[in-house]
Amino acid sequence: MSSETVFNHLLGIKGLSENQIQTIFETADNFKSLLNSPVKKTPALRDITIANLFFENSTRTRVSFELAEKRLGADIVNFSSSSSSVKKGETLIDTVNNILSMKVDMVVMRHPAPGACMFLAKHVNAQIVNAGDGTHEHPTQALLDAYSIREKLGDVAGKKVVIVGDILHSRVALSNIYCLQALGAEVMVCGPVTLIPKNIEKLGVKVSHNLNEALHWCDVANMLRIQLERQDQRYFPSLKEYSKLYGLSMQRLTQINKEICIMHPGPINRGVEITSDIADSKHSIILQQVENGVAVRMAVLFLLAQNNR
Amino acid sequence: MSSETVFNHLLGIKGLSENQIQTIFETADNFKSLLNSPVKKTPALRDITIANLFFENSTRTRVSFELAEKRLGADIVNFSSSSSSVKKGETLIDTVNNILSMKVDMVVMRHPAPGACMFLAKHVNAQIVNAGDGTHEHPTQALLDAYSIREKLGDVAGKKVVIVGDILHSRVALSNIYCLQALGAEVMVCGPVTLIPKNIEKLGVKVSHNLNEALHWCDVANMLRIQLERQDQRYFPSLKEYSKLYGLSMQRLTQINKEICIMHPGPINRGVEITSDIADSKHSIILQQVENGVAVRMAVLFLLAQNNR
Amino acid sequence: MSSETVFNHLLGIKGLSENQIQTIFETADNFKSLLNSPVKKTPALRDITIANLFFENSTRTRVSFELAEKRLGADIVNFSSSSSSVKKGETLIDTVNNILSMKVDMVVMRHPAPGACMFLAKHVNAQIVNAGDGTHEHPTQALLDAYSIREKLGDVAGKKVVIVGDILHSRVALSNIYCLQALGAEVMVCGPVTLIPKNIEKLGVKVSHNLNEALHWCDVANMLRIQLERQDQRYFPSLKEYSKLYGLSMQRLTQINKEICIMHPGPINRGVEITSDIADSKHSIILQQVENGVAVRMAVLFLLAQNNR
Repeated sequence: MSSETVFNHLLGIKGLSENQIQTIFETADNFKSLLNSPVKKTPALRDITIANLFFENSTRTRVSFELAEKRLGADIVNFSSSSSSVKKGETLIDTVNNILSMKVDMVVMRHPAPGACMFLAKHVNAQIVNAGDGTHEHPTQALLDAYSIREKLGDVAGKKVVIVGDILHSRVALSNIYCLQALGAEVMVCGPVTLIPKNIEKLGVKVSHNLNEALHWCDVANMLRIQLERQDQRYFPSLKEYSKLYGLSMQRLTQINKEICIMHPGPINRGVEITSDIADSKHSIILQQVENGVAVRMAVLFLLAQNNR
Repeated sequence: MSSETVFNHLLGIKGLSENQIQTIFETADNFKSLLNSPVKKTPALRDITIANLFFENSTRTRVSFELAEKRLGADIVNFSSSSSSVKKGETLIDTVNNILSMKVDMVVMRHPAPGACMFLAKHVNAQIVNAGDGTHEHPTQALLDAYSIREKLGDVAGKKVVIVGDILHSRVALSNIYCLQALGAEVMVCGPVTLIPKNIEKLGVKVSHNLNEALHWCDVANMLRIQLERQDQRYFPSLKEYSKLYGLSMQRLTQINKEICIMHPGPINRGVEITSDIADSKHSIILQQVENGVAVRMAVLFLLAQNNR
Repeated sequence: MSSETVFNHLLGIKGLSENQIQTIFETADNFKSLLNSPVKKTPALRDITIANLFFENSTRTRVSFELAEKRLGADIVNFSSSSSSVKKGETLIDTVNNILSMKVDMVVMRHPAPGACMFLAKHVNAQIVNAGDGTHEHPTQALLDAYSIREKLGDVAGKKVVIVGDILHSRVALSNIYCLQALGAEVMVCGPVTLIPKNIEKLGVKVSHNLNEALHWCDVANMLRIQLERQDQRYFPSLKEYSKLYGLSMQRLTQINKEICIMHPGPINRGVEITSDIADSKHSIILQQVENGVAVRMAVLFLLAQNNR
């Protein structure tokens, strides 16, 4: 591997080069083949211990990382916020340094505070993988999203991708924007005015408040989840209203009359941002995204471990 | 294995043939020997990934399944209701399809809704093992119960088994009735009128409201747990009253003056449905039931995996 | 191994001989080397199944035991109070006997009741390791503390160790006193009158209520954590006041002008019992304690398993 493709943490997509992302994808290709073979496993990380620190609840991301780690043969210790000594007044750095003293090599961390992973990477001596830090980044989600587009459409470069929904609170949106742009795609964000950050055009993305307009433009539509649990105030009048304006239904897609690849980071609110007929249709690659998530995370962990040797 | 003994899920005992149950028992015999050898393990399921989805709290059933899976060399991911994305509004089918996309082969599920496992088996493409679904069935419990009777008394056929207690809310009772009848045993249920389902005679079981009468009749008494946490209304005046009428004590057993094999699915409320002198006596096979649980669950998982190859 | 060094449980330090402790230390030396090699693992306990029963929340102790078990190749089942059937009214003995029936060889238990491990060892047929029982003992913590002193200062015998803080509620203090005395160290306890048990001198320890006096005397200062969550009444006017009188700062240490080895069982309340400049200084061996914890726990589990063969 050239030195250019080497990275020592995965804190965010920002700062990753196209080369680095392509290296992750090519490595993930191999792991995807492995996952579809009967054996599904390799002992590539058998001497590596990984701590999964989830200071926020998570199902799919935690399970996806755990399966990636197990299929690489790594040893795992799990940590959740509820059992954590953080409750006893310990600092994050102390918590992590304690775990590292037990000869843990890598930390996969989800944390409610934006920047928590970057902060940690500066202050402790371990490889950190960001599994979502507040409203900041969720880099492995963006990687698996772009990987799924590449798989479906052959390439990411030159494709038009619209991200629909709550852009304001979404770490998935931000990581996707960085990732898609690094790979040469054009990106648009679409949603109600209250859920689009001001000045987001400065990131080089188009903005639309009209879903039909966005769909006419795009090759791919990534329908974000309305995260009611993340909103401490109301940003739109009602779910019904949101759904009517920004929800994707088969009826709407038929009217657009165009092949669009439909994505969703999950978990789906069926009938809110996306209807069941779309979610379960051949246009949707939602379950492929989940499948690719394990391969992409295996690739990230494998490359980090290799870099460390 | 003949095609007759093949099954693709274990959703309930209803529908299992005597042949299928005997195949499970013979397979469990081998695993019981293995568990009592120094090594305790076989890599028989080393390429299989199993997700344990417990939407209801459980100690013994979860640990028993986990040990069965580990001793078969399977890879495991655990899921509990508290960390689940079900809370975020995701449907059960979506949750499970997501997990299956990560190349999970089997799902062991406990769920509060009767029929949840059957529903799931119809809608997802995975092998499902029911680890208890509401008040419906708990098939591995019934299998280990019958296996323990077979071990203690040589055979199940022709034996008289009384199930005592809260038959109305008990998935254990229902699965036991199906299993014991399939194997040729006679079954009686015994308890207060309020805790016996109306028309249960139509299942071919005898009914008694008098424990002494039931004990005079039976070879085996399976003393169900009073699940206070499952009763949203009162079905008897007090625990003391229940215990006096339907609790088994050494004094009562001595008066009956007959060899009866005593079972309990656990956890025991000592002094309520069973006194300590009985629970810890040579009449009780309670801990053998627990031991056999691991062997029986290994057999079920092994046969399902074999069927899938 | 001579019969003298054999033990069948680790319930507390009380009752362990110097020889037994030295055997643990020499075994831990080997495991520490292993942990610092690339492989970090040995299949020494591959036929052993260990249940971790944590009836009290814990991060570092649970993770430390889990890593020790994994690096010895043991099979593991985890249990926490929240998911436990203890909630359903089951007795501790029944819970543990159930787990043992599933062919579990060892139980590592943390429990809020002082004496719970000793009680259990008398009533069940398994090897028990006490991971902290109420205010009674925390033997592996004391072993790793003494091991860390031995590593830093060459020997424990003849050293002067002061334990500072809440001696009244501390299982760490009690286990440390027994362990250090068995190894020939002199022990002093230091703290406010309200937090020093009456008549503790009868254990052969010195008592001081003046931290400067204690520091002038000692070679090692073990700064206990103020466990606010364990105090149902107030034992000192305010944290600020405690910190002023019994907190260790670099300023205080500089005034003492003497080489003192600083320890802390964690998690640290920075700025309460110890300031950051001390915690992160070369005087502190806090992270070495954590590192040694895994090696010492591996040694304990390994020796117990060997004894059982």
